[in-house]
Amino acid sequence: MALKDILAETPARRSGIAAAVASLKDSFGDRVATGEDVRRAHAHTMTYIPNQAPDAVVFARSEDEVQRVVAICAENEAPIIPFGVGSSLEGHVNAPEGGISLDLSQMDKVLAVNAEDLDCIVEPGVTREALNAHLRDTGLFFPIDPGANASLGGMAATRASGTNAVRYGTMRDNVISLTAVMADGRIIRTARRARKTSAGYDLTRLLVGSEGTLGIITRLNLKLYGIPEAILSGVCPFPTVRDAVNTVIQTVQTGIPVARIELLDAQSMVAANAYAKLDMKPQPSLFVEFHGSPASVAEQAETFGMLAADNGGGALEASARPEERSRLWKARHDMYWASVALRPGCRAIATDVCVPVSRLADCIGETQEDLDANSLIGPIIGHVGDGNFHVTLLLDMEDRREIDAAEGFMARLARRAVDMDGTCTGEHGVGQGKRGYLEAELGASVDVMRAIKAALDPKRIMNPGKIFMP
Amino acid sequence: MALKDILAETPARRSGIAAAVASLKDSFGDRVATGEDVRRAHAHTMTYIPNQAPDAVVFARSEDEVQRVVAICAENEAPIIPFGVGSSLEGHVNAPEGGISLDLSQMDKVLAVNAEDLDCIVEPGVTREALNAHLRDTGLFFPIDPGANASLGGMAATRASGTNAVRYGTMRDNVISLTAVMADGRIIRTARRARKTSAGYDLTRLLVGSEGTLGIITRLNLKLYGIPEAILSGVCPFPTVRDAVNTVIQTVQTGIPVARIELLDAQSMVAANAYAKLDMKPQPSLFVEFHGSPASVAEQAETFGMLAADNGGGALEASARPEERSRLWKARHDMYWASVALRPGCRAIATDVCVPVSRLADCIGETQEDLDANSLIGPIIGHVGDGNFHVTLLLDMEDRREIDAAEGFMARLARRAVDMDGTCTGEHGVGQGKRGYLEAELGASVDVMRAIKAALDPKRIMNPGKIFMP
Repeated sequence: MALKDILAETPARRSGIAAAVASLKDSFGDRVATGEDVRRAHAHTMTYIPNQAPDAVVFARSEDEVQRVVAICAENEAPIIPFGVGSSLEGHVNAPEGGISLDLSQMDKVLAVNAEDLDCIVEPGVTREALNAHLRDTGLFFPIDPGANASLGGMAATRASGTNAVRYGTMRDNVISLTAVMADGRIIRTARRARKTSAGYDLTRLLVGSEGTLGIITRLNLKLYGIPEAILSGVCPFPTVRDAVNTVIQTVQTGIPVARIELLDAQSMVAANAYAKLDMKPQPSLFVEFHGSPASVAEQAETFGMLAADNGGGALEASARPEERSRLWKARHDMYWASVALRPGCRAIATDVCVPVSRLADCIGETQEDLDANSLIGPIIGHVGDGNFHVTLLLDMEDRREIDAAEGFMARLARRAVDMDGTCTGEHGVGQGKRGYLEAELGASVDVMRAIKAALDPKRIMNPGKIFMP
Repeated sequence: MALKDILAETPARRSGIAAAVASLKDSFGDRVATGEDVRRAHAHTMTYIPNQAPDAVVFARSEDEVQRVVAICAENEAPIIPFGVGSSLEGHVNAPEGGISLDLSQMDKVLAVNAEDLDCIVEPGVTREALNAHLRDTGLFFPIDPGANASLGGMAATRASGTNAVRYGTMRDNVISLTAVMADGRIIRTARRARKTSAGYDLTRLLVGSEGTLGIITRLNLKLYGIPEAILSGVCPFPTVRDAVNTVIQTVQTGIPVARIELLDAQSMVAANAYAKLDMKPQPSLFVEFHGSPASVAEQAETFGMLAADNGGGALEASARPEERSRLWKARHDMYWASVALRPGCRAIATDVCVPVSRLADCIGETQEDLDANSLIGPIIGHVGDGNFHVTLLLDMEDRREIDAAEGFMARLARRAVDMDGTCTGEHGVGQGKRGYLEAELGASVDVMRAIKAALDPKRIMNPGKIFMP
């Protein structure tokens, strides 16, 4: 949608913010920053949504401090924008109405690892890489991997996922419970540590994906998994995207517990080869990974290979050697930079739709036609086991025609996904960038969301201007 | 807790109900029933919570009709109690304030099976057995199995699970989206059919487990799974419950993707032997099931067998033959009747706590001591992969001492589970029976639930008297 719509906002409210900043300075001293560089670094820096800096940044070190920030902001009706590492893609950390960025990166302790229960308790500023480093000697790992080294609080707030959601689920599935400071200062713990509960409304799932608009997450109880005994990764080329997608459908139907199954289109393979100095076939390809016992991963790979061959796929080149697996997945994870390198000087804008997998080949096919018809460059990669794919638009931001074409393309892509019974946002969240698409996708459900928002944050201080259009 | 607390309620409101019944008769004719037998059959019949019949029962056949019932009840501020098959255990279908039972059992169509996407769309009155019968020729199945042949709408409303949640999750994990009529008559569809979404608040998960207190579910989009190529089931005896539980912990940690892992205590084994005419060892035992390829299930069983042996377990007697598997699981599923047969004339009352699995042996041990100290009979069975177990109290309802002892026992059991960071209700829901325990378990979260309830059902017509104490 058009930038002016993305940024549509209610009138700013300056009065209370200055008082809130003064009060925060009294309370937090030099942990309140108002310099422009710090403020800008705490607003949106990704994609083409402009940076809208907050009035001040507060660095909190404890749940008590978060509660104090919320109390001060509530008293002054000043917006609070929670901040982890700032890797969100849809303007979640922008301050369109001004206010206070609440930086949680110093709340970075792993509070407990319960190995017998396969869970852990962390503060929201712990990043996924820091958690996995902490777990190194336990034989356990936390699987959700959105690419960026995001904070776990931010990942929960945006319901993040990534390459292995097909096997391990998204943040929705991997948060057992969480603690949050609500708009009225109440601290709630949404569930206890049992794996299963039917004790009332699922507030855990309500807060996961709420993007800081209902409460500030201060603690997370997360599921962990045993590191698989054997891991086998490989790449397999196909004549067409449809052949690759058909292989994915059959893989999932056959019950192969594939851990990752990622599509790269031909253009992405060209980019990956150039960037990572590889010589993979420049055809639509699936990157796959299997987890299990040595016998099980061998069997999974063999069955997958047969399905791929049935669909015209080439040989699966697979390896269990850590360095080869790392090289392969590094090529996949570097796709953002590999894509940017296709067009030096460009700006890359990530899209993120998800459709039922039966419609995935159609959706990708129509999207490629749309790119061609509008002379846009956009390599496609996808978490195809979930029906989720990203077009990385490579734009010359000086070229007005190209910007307009891209805005039209993004709106059509969202509409196309919704028309195929999918979503405009598979894993990036709504933020500012997708607000304009939500009603078309969810109709009256958005009114119910608004009613919940109004009930829990009547002063509208929690990350205003996100999820909902004014 | 004491029966008087379970049944505590706000004053009845008779005025609007009579007008609502009259209006419903105008609209639905002889599909409004007011005879005592029908009314009583639509209220609670399980456990020791008394039957509190509604004033009338309406049989709806479509979403439009559900919407019409809600409109009439809203206009007259008359309670609506949704009803599937009435197999819930905590008084969910009772009408403590009177009102209209909305029977959805005639909304029993499977509307779509999307084999490529492994999902289906059903009306709420479809039972889980009817769905699986419908799927018979597709190679697909719906795994969630709470024992009773419950309606899928009811299972979603109570966030049900059962014996294979350890592998396939609960209703929370298996509802992709749902359609519901809200208290103001609005129809919402909570998500589209994509497997993954980050489009705003997770209303699907908010409604799953809301027990009819927020909206009436009229349509469900459910995940399906390929029927495993091979299934192997078996039973393995242990010296003690703790040995069995340690085996469960190691099984899960090792990453064996066990499909079911159920504990029966020694008393349950005695009951099962007598009832099903089997000669299993009268020791604490694990019933297990493995799903996968033939090679994979053999490997899983072998690894499990080694872990069991390390913990003093006997040989795993396993079979892939359908009739033997059926016999084994029939013995497990008949445990309610087998338990009742231990004490002819008794009333059986199911409890349902869930704790972190590391605390499970402690929780079961202390619970067995509590039973003994109070001369109560209560065989124990458990979905131990999730840390969830049930004591089936066998009571002489004529014996006041025994009733009092049972009430005290149940309160201590709930408290014990919560003190071990668990829940008073793993899969049965809150209903009337667990309302008194919720605050102790979830504290201020209950206030947030109340705020959501008030925002979405300000007239308090949706299944009042459930989840929340007055």
